[in-house]
Amino acid sequence: MERNQVYNFSAGPAVLPEEVLQEAADEMMNYRGTGMSVMEMSHRSSDYQAIIDDAEQDLRDLLGIPDNYKVLFLQGGASQQFAMIPMNLMKNRVADYIVTGNWAKKAAQEAALYGKVNIVASSQDKTFSYIPDLSDLPISEDADYVYICQNNTIYGTTIKNLPDTKGKDLVSDVSSMFLSEPMDVTRYGLVYGGVQKNIGPAGVVISIIREDLITEDVLPGTPTMLRFKTHADSGSMYNTPPCYGIYICGKVFKWLKSIGGLEVMKERNEKKAKILYDYLDSSRMFRGTVRREDRSLMNVPFVTGSKELDAKFVSEATAAGFKNLKGHRTVGGMRASIYNAMPEEGVRALVKFMEKFEEENI
Amino acid sequence: MERNQVYNFSAGPAVLPEEVLQEAADEMMNYRGTGMSVMEMSHRSSDYQAIIDDAEQDLRDLLGIPDNYKVLFLQGGASQQFAMIPMNLMKNRVADYIVTGNWAKKAAQEAALYGKVNIVASSQDKTFSYIPDLSDLPISEDADYVYICQNNTIYGTTIKNLPDTKGKDLVSDVSSMFLSEPMDVTRYGLVYGGVQKNIGPAGVVISIIREDLITEDVLPGTPTMLRFKTHADSGSMYNTPPCYGIYICGKVFKWLKSIGGLEVMKERNEKKAKILYDYLDSSRMFRGTVRREDRSLMNVPFVTGSKELDAKFVSEATAAGFKNLKGHRTVGGMRASIYNAMPEEGVRALVKFMEKFEEENI
Repeated sequence: MERNQVYNFSAGPAVLPEEVLQEAADEMMNYRGTGMSVMEMSHRSSDYQAIIDDAEQDLRDLLGIPDNYKVLFLQGGASQQFAMIPMNLMKNRVADYIVTGNWAKKAAQEAALYGKVNIVASSQDKTFSYIPDLSDLPISEDADYVYICQNNTIYGTTIKNLPDTKGKDLVSDVSSMFLSEPMDVTRYGLVYGGVQKNIGPAGVVISIIREDLITEDVLPGTPTMLRFKTHADSGSMYNTPPCYGIYICGKVFKWLKSIGGLEVMKERNEKKAKILYDYLDSSRMFRGTVRREDRSLMNVPFVTGSKELDAKFVSEATAAGFKNLKGHRTVGGMRASIYNAMPEEGVRALVKFMEKFEEENI
Repeated sequence: MERNQVYNFSAGPAVLPEEVLQEAADEMMNYRGTGMSVMEMSHRSSDYQAIIDDAEQDLRDLLGIPDNYKVLFLQGGASQQFAMIPMNLMKNRVADYIVTGNWAKKAAQEAALYGKVNIVASSQDKTFSYIPDLSDLPISEDADYVYICQNNTIYGTTIKNLPDTKGKDLVSDVSSMFLSEPMDVTRYGLVYGGVQKNIGPAGVVISIIREDLITEDVLPGTPTMLRFKTHADSGSMYNTPPCYGIYICGKVFKWLKSIGGLEVMKERNEKKAKILYDYLDSSRMFRGTVRREDRSLMNVPFVTGSKELDAKFVSEATAAGFKNLKGHRTVGGMRASIYNAMPEEGVRALVKFMEKFEEENI
């Protein structure tokens, strides 16, 4: 198929802006007169230093990151952060976790290797289809931090009102909503995300962390590479960083600036999501699986109510160029991930296809 | 500058085969009729599974990797392996390290976080300019493994005769010589390398490990992501792997097969290295810094004997398109890294330039 015949609804790695990919293709053999690909550049060269510096500055501009927060480009995905966070922040060996999905649950399980983990709220009772009330939680007196996964990729929910942490530092995994809308960084001690959903190719994690949380006082046995201080002290260049991935992230940051920044991005995302949710709410065949007020702008799970019909829909949609609509193996049904780079036309085309399928199969 | 006006002698990230980059550029917008870039592909898709499966099989073919060895695609660079190796293999909390350069030294320092590290040989007395005799070392009775860095990128030496480990498992970092010549995998318990020197873009580490060394019996506090078993059990897909980097590695494996495999690659590398070393041995201005019998085929450090002349040479060479010839900050002078993808013409052109410089400046 041609690129313009396909809409990619993958939950991640996911669709990237066409302009970004085109630029990357154009620069592959020779990056701006250096005579080499970015993949071939020494990470200690001034050419590469300019790329990573620009990427950091553009991210700071987009999010308005204050000077007392460090921006770190790391590796190992969110799964590695699940360990790195307690190893660095669990001074009292106690942390409170809010479990609104699979990834928060995994993060809590990993943290339990290092200290006492209190699950202060959970929505597992209803297959994570809603966000619990987070306004008055039994936060532990000696908790080192309170942890959330802010957008649940698998279940399609978003924490819209951040928890009252009662003075404790909030740590948030924003992987599947990173840069989908503005974010007040000062409300977090640490906010991080894998880039492979909304920002770039898999293999880069961006961690934004308040400076006072970066200390040498880490748990015994913490590897050098898993200490925030190692990366903060070296400008994410303690060893060779994932150079090419960071370069692509930088292009996406420039693309976001070019369209008008995160306010504009948010409007676009709200418009796209409304098109799909409005259809789901009016359909006689399809329905969303998430409590309305907790719906994600990024990940939209839905079902027909019949497994056979679900499978038929996914199969026909795939053949028609609507790719990766199958729901996560743990929930079944369908899921449309409509990240930043998914154009409105893609959502409109999907809804049109769903309408036709509904007509033919009801 | 145009690509054909530049020869990139970077120690890593480093030059990649032009054919590989051209294919990557051609496939950037649409990978073989999928309508998407490899960067945008779900790692759980059959299209991506075929890419990683092919990469593994081609690597197995190139090195003749036996079935009782697993091939893992990991993240975090060699620096993360420095911790991962003791965390997984140090059952007795004892290991023997052979220190022939900076990276082996760092590996030993990291391992000392987890147990007793015996330095059983070192060449630090002469700035790592040679490889010590490794034929009869005081291997510890209770050592869990013996560790080497087989090619020393900074100092330009290679361990040509593997140590007699007296029955202990050998662990080797081959980052800067990976796939530069054939290798008998069965001589190692674990052999690994960052790919960013000879194989692909930074952000991927390949670890080849004998199955019996992959166990659940790891040190307490070992993060899930730092357990070999996590990755071995999931085909390197416990979480999203560095998909795009693995895809480029796969292309390099196919390129190596297309030229005739590692025997042919070795001949080419020997020929290239001979051109440069022969010139260094005959020059009245430049000289190599390494004991002859220990010289690396990949990294060739040299000096004029004068810091001013070194600087002048690097500056004029850079202007003439010979990039990244400055030696590592810890040793000074010059270093030409002539990895697999450096063509013979590049080495010949460098020698010609050095001859001219010698004539003009002696």
